[in-house]
Amino acid sequence: MKKNKEPVYYGDYLGLDKLLSAQQPVSPHYGAEAHDETLFIIVHQAYELWFKQIIHEMRSILGLFRAENLPDEALMTVVHRLQRIVTIQELLNHQIDVMETMTAQDFLEFRDYLVPASGFQSIQFKEIEISLGVKRDKRIAFDQASFYNRINDKDRAYLESLEEQPDLFERVDAWLARMPFLETQDFSFWKHYERAIEEQIERDRAIVESNTLLSDEERVQELAELENTRENFAALFEPERYQVMRDEGRVRLSQKALQAALFIEMYREEPAFNLPYQVLNSLVDLDENLTIWRYRHAMMVQRMLGSKIGTGGSSGHEYLKRTTEKNRIFADFMNLATYLLPKAALPPLPESVRNSLRRYSV
Amino acid sequence: MKKNKEPVYYGDYLGLDKLLSAQQPVSPHYGAEAHDETLFIIVHQAYELWFKQIIHEMRSILGLFRAENLPDEALMTVVHRLQRIVTIQELLNHQIDVMETMTAQDFLEFRDYLVPASGFQSIQFKEIEISLGVKRDKRIAFDQASFYNRINDKDRAYLESLEEQPDLFERVDAWLARMPFLETQDFSFWKHYERAIEEQIERDRAIVESNTLLSDEERVQELAELENTRENFAALFEPERYQVMRDEGRVRLSQKALQAALFIEMYREEPAFNLPYQVLNSLVDLDENLTIWRYRHAMMVQRMLGSKIGTGGSSGHEYLKRTTEKNRIFADFMNLATYLLPKAALPPLPESVRNSLRRYSV
Amino acid sequence: MKKNKEPVYYGDYLGLDKLLSAQQPVSPHYGAEAHDETLFIIVHQAYELWFKQIIHEMRSILGLFRAENLPDEALMTVVHRLQRIVTIQELLNHQIDVMETMTAQDFLEFRDYLVPASGFQSIQFKEIEISLGVKRDKRIAFDQASFYNRINDKDRAYLESLEEQPDLFERVDAWLARMPFLETQDFSFWKHYERAIEEQIERDRAIVESNTLLSDEERVQELAELENTRENFAALFEPERYQVMRDEGRVRLSQKALQAALFIEMYREEPAFNLPYQVLNSLVDLDENLTIWRYRHAMMVQRMLGSKIGTGGSSGHEYLKRTTEKNRIFADFMNLATYLLPKAALPPLPESVRNSLRRYSV
Amino acid sequence: MKKNKEPVYYGDYLGLDKLLSAQQPVSPHYGAEAHDETLFIIVHQAYELWFKQIIHEMRSILGLFRAENLPDEALMTVVHRLQRIVTIQELLNHQIDVMETMTAQDFLEFRDYLVPASGFQSIQFKEIEISLGVKRDKRIAFDQASFYNRINDKDRAYLESLEEQPDLFERVDAWLARMPFLETQDFSFWKHYERAIEEQIERDRAIVESNTLLSDEERVQELAELENTRENFAALFEPERYQVMRDEGRVRLSQKALQAALFIEMYREEPAFNLPYQVLNSLVDLDENLTIWRYRHAMMVQRMLGSKIGTGGSSGHEYLKRTTEKNRIFADFMNLATYLLPKAALPPLPESVRNSLRRYSV
Repeated sequence: MKKNKEPVYYGDYLGLDKLLSAQQPVSPHYGAEAHDETLFIIVHQAYELWFKQIIHEMRSILGLFRAENLPDEALMTVVHRLQRIVTIQELLNHQIDVMETMTAQDFLEFRDYLVPASGFQSIQFKEIEISLGVKRDKRIAFDQASFYNRINDKDRAYLESLEEQPDLFERVDAWLARMPFLETQDFSFWKHYERAIEEQIERDRAIVESNTLLSDEERVQELAELENTRENFAALFEPERYQVMRDEGRVRLSQKALQAALFIEMYREEPAFNLPYQVLNSLVDLDENLTIWRYRHAMMVQRMLGSKIGTGGSSGHEYLKRTTEKNRIFADFMNLATYLLPKAALPPLPESVRNSLRRYSV
Repeated sequence: MKKNKEPVYYGDYLGLDKLLSAQQPVSPHYGAEAHDETLFIIVHQAYELWFKQIIHEMRSILGLFRAENLPDEALMTVVHRLQRIVTIQELLNHQIDVMETMTAQDFLEFRDYLVPASGFQSIQFKEIEISLGVKRDKRIAFDQASFYNRINDKDRAYLESLEEQPDLFERVDAWLARMPFLETQDFSFWKHYERAIEEQIERDRAIVESNTLLSDEERVQELAELENTRENFAALFEPERYQVMRDEGRVRLSQKALQAALFIEMYREEPAFNLPYQVLNSLVDLDENLTIWRYRHAMMVQRMLGSKIGTGGSSGHEYLKRTTEKNRIFADFMNLATYLLPKAALPPLPESVRNSLRRYSV
Repeated sequence: MKKNKEPVYYGDYLGLDKLLSAQQPVSPHYGAEAHDETLFIIVHQAYELWFKQIIHEMRSILGLFRAENLPDEALMTVVHRLQRIVTIQELLNHQIDVMETMTAQDFLEFRDYLVPASGFQSIQFKEIEISLGVKRDKRIAFDQASFYNRINDKDRAYLESLEEQPDLFERVDAWLARMPFLETQDFSFWKHYERAIEEQIERDRAIVESNTLLSDEERVQELAELENTRENFAALFEPERYQVMRDEGRVRLSQKALQAALFIEMYREEPAFNLPYQVLNSLVDLDENLTIWRYRHAMMVQRMLGSKIGTGGSSGHEYLKRTTEKNRIFADFMNLATYLLPKAALPPLPESVRNSLRRYSV
Repeated sequence: MKKNKEPVYYGDYLGLDKLLSAQQPVSPHYGAEAHDETLFIIVHQAYELWFKQIIHEMRSILGLFRAENLPDEALMTVVHRLQRIVTIQELLNHQIDVMETMTAQDFLEFRDYLVPASGFQSIQFKEIEISLGVKRDKRIAFDQASFYNRINDKDRAYLESLEEQPDLFERVDAWLARMPFLETQDFSFWKHYERAIEEQIERDRAIVESNTLLSDEERVQELAELENTRENFAALFEPERYQVMRDEGRVRLSQKALQAALFIEMYREEPAFNLPYQVLNSLVDLDENLTIWRYRHAMMVQRMLGSKIGTGGSSGHEYLKRTTEKNRIFADFMNLATYLLPKAALPPLPESVRNSLRRYSV
């Protein structure tokens, strides 16, 4: 057996010669070595290692979603690997604490030597964003401009090729839209559901109107928001109005996908929905952790640079904070909460749906 | 000895009869008990316990700052207790993970029963904000209106009395402004410092202009920001212009306090500055953790309610996100990074300052 | 509707009058208040709040396991609530960081006043241990003696009544032992499995013998352990020998339960095993977090008291470290790894099992 | 300036070509790639990156301790860098969560291919242990044998050369033993201190004897431990008896160093002791985090292998758990708590000591 012929040595297996010779601070070329430049390098290298792992998981997940339908075995793997990405993200959030052991003044000792290198040039991070669904047209204007400059042609070409491929958002949207049970002809169900939501909104209106603690200004604002909710809800079932919401960027999922997601959230205790629910929930965790990381990272940059510009010539934390909310991908699943019903108020599933579920789960 | 007369029993000492009988879910009054209401209650009670601990530390810290000058012993205690608050804040951030084990649908089972109760009614949280320095005039318009309604008269009266008292921001500002070494008449020092900063800004300009990777739009923007930095810096030494910056809310510290903070940051390795530096650094940690908590809390609310209004009739996460940046207190210390110099570029401390430092540290 | 009649107020709903008046430091009765006694009280009260939440989840989980068979809906709830306990445990582990902001010397300022109160008197913690499965006969001798003294009669009576009731370990053991697919008469399967394990052990023997890096002492030891593994494995299928292992405390699960657990671990990608696998995995997480907490807690006590005795008259960290491994409950599930096979080496499931699985999952 | 001549590119600066080409799974050489082998490689590579950073800090800290006396500036740097190591350790502890997303069965898919590679071959980890103070003679017998086999000659030679050099424990011991104030001739001070400790022990005896909740067995045990404490304490001041304690491995610090540490702990609010106290405290944090990591790592191995032997032919978690307590380095500082006095009971510092402190702190 091969392993008898070539016993593996820890250091060779892990390529430690390459790995541990890849820390080349530049400060010694200009004078005394800046002690903290090693930390700066290793923190970023650790990020890149974890980005590679996240990409490894993303590719396998995207591969599984390519299939026409996903059996439970495949969904289990999807959930397991999404949860692994979520666990890695929690580690990346902690890693900011390590970076923050470097003071702003210590950073100044080598900052100028790094010009114009910048975290914006992390191709792996951009690959993660693109393969999740942060495509060019989704970015803020400034970002659309800057996303593809600052990197060399080879890297740009690679990322642009990724833009052509289906991303996780699109795969999940298509998977949801395909769900068979949506074809139910049982209109009484949607009617029942619509009525229940109307009642919920009326209860909320009563809350606002009877709340003597609210200022008039607040009351007006809340009632307007309720109207807003009512209209958004109505739009869920009217293709044209839904399209308007979508064009305005108030929702990103296709109408069929959003309806399926709503279904899964509400009836998640149906065995057939258990795994789909875990998929949606993992995507919300992933989106939340990425957003928290963006926000913490922006604060760390502010702490390091104040309002000074970054080595890449970007305005640092202001820019980063602008992208925090804008670059969210799966926020629609969070916003579903707006349209949920308490278990007790749920209309019983029509037989036609139960049947398609049974077929679906086999 | 008393302890021989009355041996202490764990449960009595901790008042467990009171503590563990304070969980009174309301859902049973309306039907079946909602299993997760207990979690909802205990999560909020745990917050209130920790808020009480934070207030306990805040009061002792404010008490210490009341003194005309703070000897090293007092500063050590201040740092120790600020760091304890920071450690508690990290726990509060983790606590959001526990709350998020409750799904939006499970929350719906008892949400309506809580109306119009709301986290906005946490008097202890408001006390923490006020005693840190989030005073009425610092709040966003909407918040100024809402901060004092929704709570009963007794609570309002208590909080308004707190508004009259000096808060931590004011105490720290006064402590910094008092620092003796600022009276130095050695103008050559400030000149030297000003020149060094000018050079830094020129280097940054070179970075931007030589950075072929920037789009014209970006270059224009960055150069404008550099001009901005230059003016802000100049304003540090011109009382009138500083006052303008302050009126515009671009800086909150008094001019003398900001200069002292800059001094401490740059010369923090002077033994006499070690503890003052630890104080400033702890305040930045505290401000950062509170801001992260606000942001994570806003996301958790979005996850629980979508765009639905909260039980207190507030629009939930939108409002909360608006306050995240607005309610920061010690951001000026973070922004100091803009005006720091690398150790090598620091002008040597003038003898007049060294002397006042020696006096100061005794 | 009731909520219109009685609007809920945040502070009343959370019983803050009780909750926030339950901190009664004793140091003021003996002299100056010890500043950190409040921290000491609040840390322990926060623990008790979370213990109450864990007990709330434990009771609902034990209730679900009382049923003759658990449909997928019930298993989903079990997994969800076990995972919530795990999330709370992670919070309790972080809470030790807060306690450690109190120095040993600061503790000395009020330690003597607490005598003989002790954490050993936390009835809720003992309830959690008992309901998980740390029953009297499972404890170390010293602990068997001490577990029930130091507490008053009422508390002792309550805990002793709990000892009579089935605990989670017993419920899970019975649930596993009941699994229908174990009745398969297809002996070829077990034969196949046995052969595969034998091969695995032989590969391990080759590893040890061919490993030139091992000292003779090590090689002898490893080969002995391999023999040990072989015998343990054989015992899995021979009731008498299994009973011996169990009597010696090398395994705690019943033979049928262990076999079922092995099955579930190996074939967890069978849809019918997905939820049972998540149950086992959550129990391992729970056991691991409790063990880590015990260990960290023991270190914290050492840091606070050195080798001094605790206020309850116990020898502190030495005792606590002794219980860390001894009080583990679900270690058998971790040790299953010893008998797992790579997916590729798994014998195909016999038809008889597939059928019972199908029945089982409906 | 150089940076104008050669603009730095992010990927080149971080050596990403080397770094991201160092993941070479071996499973593809034997059949299908095992998906999780990439995770296994990257987790270990991330550890090695952080080990390199810890070594970078350790070397600078050891360098600073080489000086005859350490001015406050140097101690500030020592504390800052020790705290950075502590922050990295917290990250390494979190990293175990990522590793645990790999199941035992998934590991089996490639485990055999790695033989006989093993984490015991991490030279950087061994360097960290040696430079902290885990020298050959400090190890458990089994470990003394195994520490230096399993690695190639070059690596062994390197580690053996490290054994010759002074480690952090020795440097800290010497630094403490040198402290000038220990030369005080004011015997009344030690008398006062001794009397205060005697009183403390008598109070503890009263606690034990008056504690009706203790079983006789417990009472006997506790009183014996008290006698033990009394003798250990007496030994602190009698060179011969201290040497006995040290030979028995009950204490590791030299007598003078231990006395100095006691002094610093008790009088840490003396400005001159502030930084030395932070050094001791950071060393305790470091020791605690390393110990927790060892324990968690042992549990992770148990979860992955059960009682199976590791790929390096070691018995896995049993061995690892044996080393957890044995390899502690700075436990003496934790155990100091045994001999502390409450601030109120502290004898006033003799003038002779105050004077030497003043000299010391300048």
